[in-house]
Amino acid sequence: MQALGRQILVEYYNCDPDIINDVSQIESILLEATRKSNASIISHNFHKFSPHGVSGTVVIAESHVAIHTWPEYGYAAVDIFTCGETIDPWIIQEHIKDCFRSGNVSSMEMKRGMFKVEEGQELLFKPKDAPAFANSY
Amino acid sequence: MQALGRQILVEYYNCDPDIINDVSQIESILLEATRKSNASIISHNFHKFSPHGVSGTVVIAESHVAIHTWPEYGYAAVDIFTCGETIDPWIIQEHIKDCFRSGNVSSMEMKRGMFKVEEGQELLFKPKDAPAFANSY
Repeated sequence: MQALGRQILVEYYNCDPDIINDVSQIESILLEATRKSNASIISHNFHKFSPHGVSGTVVIAESHVAIHTWPEYGYAAVDIFTCGETIDPWIIQEHIKDCFRSGNVSSMEMKRGMFKVEEGQELLFKPKDAPAFANSY
Repeated sequence: MQALGRQILVEYYNCDPDIINDVSQIESILLEATRKSNASIISHNFHKFSPHGVSGTVVIAESHVAIHTWPEYGYAAVDIFTCGETIDPWIIQEHIKDCFRSGNVSSMEMKRGMFKVEEGQELLFKPKDAPAFANSY
């Protein structure tokens, strides 16, 4: 069995509430994290909620990163979904942890899209086929 | 213990490859699904890859829906992340399953952001505080 993608679900507890309530800081941190991991950024959207909290997504050629923050609880939920061998999702996880000054992180890695393949064969990942030729719609 | 959010990770196997390679159909299906679930849509982005495959995200006031498709394998990965009591994520899961004509669906529901609360108290969810006053950034 081989998997098309891998996904890390991260719970960042005890974060700096000012940082995780600041939409421009969160955007910078997530974009910097995805760049460090060698991801190709395709689009990104961040939104600030009233009275507090931020939601955002970064679509990358290798899948996506999504975030939701609850500054009132010092908590941020982050999903890091990647495919292909060129990107290391744990670089993203680590960078965000440092920047949010999270005192308590819980991470779970899942495999997505499991297929049986013949011996010697490999699943083809989108980024291998088409490194950066995504068209916005 | 109470959770701030819930997330359904869905594996749609044996989908109609034409449908899950069509970015405009996928966009319509996901937007229709989120509307049916009573979600408040804030932004959405969909991208078509060459030679095949679609990625997209829908940010909703109640969190997000994300999709990645591999038409060559008849497979779509969907994440449905919600918070609050006003939205039923399983309506989204079911609508997408029907529209993709998926012959084999595997779903896993996770709790996100677990906190201990005093008896009689409740965690406050963003949508309850601020139903639709999100600002795009």
